[in-house]
Amino acid sequence: MGLPYKLETSPEIFMQHFGDALIERVRALGTPLCVGLDPYLDRIPPLFRDGDMSPGNPLTAPAVEAFLKAVLDRAAGKTAVVKPQIAFFERMGWRGLRALEEVCSHARKLGMLVLLDAKRGDIGSTADAYAGAYLTDDAPLPADALTLNPYLGMDTLEPFFTTAKAHGRGLFILVKTSNPGSGDFQDLKIGNRSLAETVADTLNSQAEALTGGVTGWSSLGVVVGATYPGEAERIRQIMPRTIFLVPGYGAQGGSAAAAVNGFVKGPNGLEGGIVSSSRGILFPASGDTASAVDWEKAIDAAIDQAATELGEAVSV
Amino acid sequence: MGLPYKLETSPEIFMQHFGDALIERVRALGTPLCVGLDPYLDRIPPLFRDGDMSPGNPLTAPAVEAFLKAVLDRAAGKTAVVKPQIAFFERMGWRGLRALEEVCSHARKLGMLVLLDAKRGDIGSTADAYAGAYLTDDAPLPADALTLNPYLGMDTLEPFFTTAKAHGRGLFILVKTSNPGSGDFQDLKIGNRSLAETVADTLNSQAEALTGGVTGWSSLGVVVGATYPGEAERIRQIMPRTIFLVPGYGAQGGSAAAAVNGFVKGPNGLEGGIVSSSRGILFPASGDTASAVDWEKAIDAAIDQAATELGEAVSV
Repeated sequence: MGLPYKLETSPEIFMQHFGDALIERVRALGTPLCVGLDPYLDRIPPLFRDGDMSPGNPLTAPAVEAFLKAVLDRAAGKTAVVKPQIAFFERMGWRGLRALEEVCSHARKLGMLVLLDAKRGDIGSTADAYAGAYLTDDAPLPADALTLNPYLGMDTLEPFFTTAKAHGRGLFILVKTSNPGSGDFQDLKIGNRSLAETVADTLNSQAEALTGGVTGWSSLGVVVGATYPGEAERIRQIMPRTIFLVPGYGAQGGSAAAAVNGFVKGPNGLEGGIVSSSRGILFPASGDTASAVDWEKAIDAAIDQAATELGEAVSV
Repeated sequence: MGLPYKLETSPEIFMQHFGDALIERVRALGTPLCVGLDPYLDRIPPLFRDGDMSPGNPLTAPAVEAFLKAVLDRAAGKTAVVKPQIAFFERMGWRGLRALEEVCSHARKLGMLVLLDAKRGDIGSTADAYAGAYLTDDAPLPADALTLNPYLGMDTLEPFFTTAKAHGRGLFILVKTSNPGSGDFQDLKIGNRSLAETVADTLNSQAEALTGGVTGWSSLGVVVGATYPGEAERIRQIMPRTIFLVPGYGAQGGSAAAAVNGFVKGPNGLEGGIVSSSRGILFPASGDTASAVDWEKAIDAAIDQAATELGEAVSV
């Protein structure tokens, strides 16, 4: 954890393949931690609060931006990737989206990959607009990867496959989500397989087509909740080269061991996934302090704890 | 069609129940037309173009805003509801979202309901943020209704049910989409029913709970593509009081007759749905003119044709 952050992948290689870039960074750091950026407005610490923090206050979005940039400064060199959740920015309207652009830009300047959690999905021409908004070189809000919802079908994912390939970006498609009700539809049985497993199976040929030349991992990843380790194992059987984005660790109740259940043996331990933690890192109990030094210590400790715990879980 | 636009529902009733407000407006106008606002940047007519219309040009979003406001001025009194597709605004970054706020506000001032097509869906606390962004009275971008994706499960829809009920708003949940690949997952068989039908069945008790007292229609609607009229009939059997949002009419190949296949007999003809048309109305062949008068004539003719064709389809 104490290692200075070092880019193992040159910018050129990064632009060519997201899966390789992500796994190389995770290997170098020794932890699959992904820092989630979910700025609950009512939990922004006193140090950064400006006014009442209501969504309609024009000062709210700049305060959120300052808070998250300060978190990113602490996270640099300790995490390969950060995951902003766009809903919390949309809650603030266009000022929120402008703040998100600044936050993403700041993270990339610090050498971290940006995985935008937006769970988009729409028919062809609309999907093109979403891909253009987040995954192209002229995107107003350029991210390195984007989360997607598969319900509409494979033709609605195609524009994202094409754009991801052309611009060296990554995709994480919802397969089995971490929430208690994820089984309502994802666990329904299609023959002897769940819908989630059927989605995984349908996606796998595209995942194979987007596999990188350096690490062997694909730029097409899937979301598999830490709260369902058994399903993670079954999905790993179906998708051997797909990176798992694992939410549900920490605040949602998934343990570190459960979170890495779909990981496989790599050169430096278990690999093939990233595990996101948001609330536990952004809002540690000791972070409600008016002292900048104390706040930094609290964030550092929260990041180090999650990074170390997950690092130990992949050490075998 | 020639009737002056008249609000049959008072603002108070409208705030209490979206389903009633929508159906009363559709009955008054005699057409289930919903004007889709999908601003393809490369098709904005010469009259409104400013500079190169690239997504990164700061002048692009204001040009789109001016174009859509002019369309809304033509549509007022002829359509009950307009449906902006948020992806095309996100494509322009925060300036696009700011333009969308202005466009939605303009539509509501003209007496039209705004159905925001965003297809959101996320776990509980994140769903709350989305609901707050679009469906509350303090939302930065207030819409009358929102489209949602059900893949994550019922607990992820709950915050939207609660907010819709508290603020008199509507929801349209994806069931059977209009695209060619919608069958990849939506047509999978769960026992003897498709996944789409299973989703419809799971949603129906909530739809019943959100039924209005005036028209008997629910504020919980579903999306059922015009391109699958047989599935529309089956979903209608499962959800008798649910308003269908029917995409796929016109440019995507669905006929007016197919579009109203899931409608049922009401006091003034077939009812229980709205049919969206976007490209055919925003970009008529004769709309590429530098004359404001000619452009207005072209848009008027396109709206009148769609409104009349759909009005005839529901006249029985």
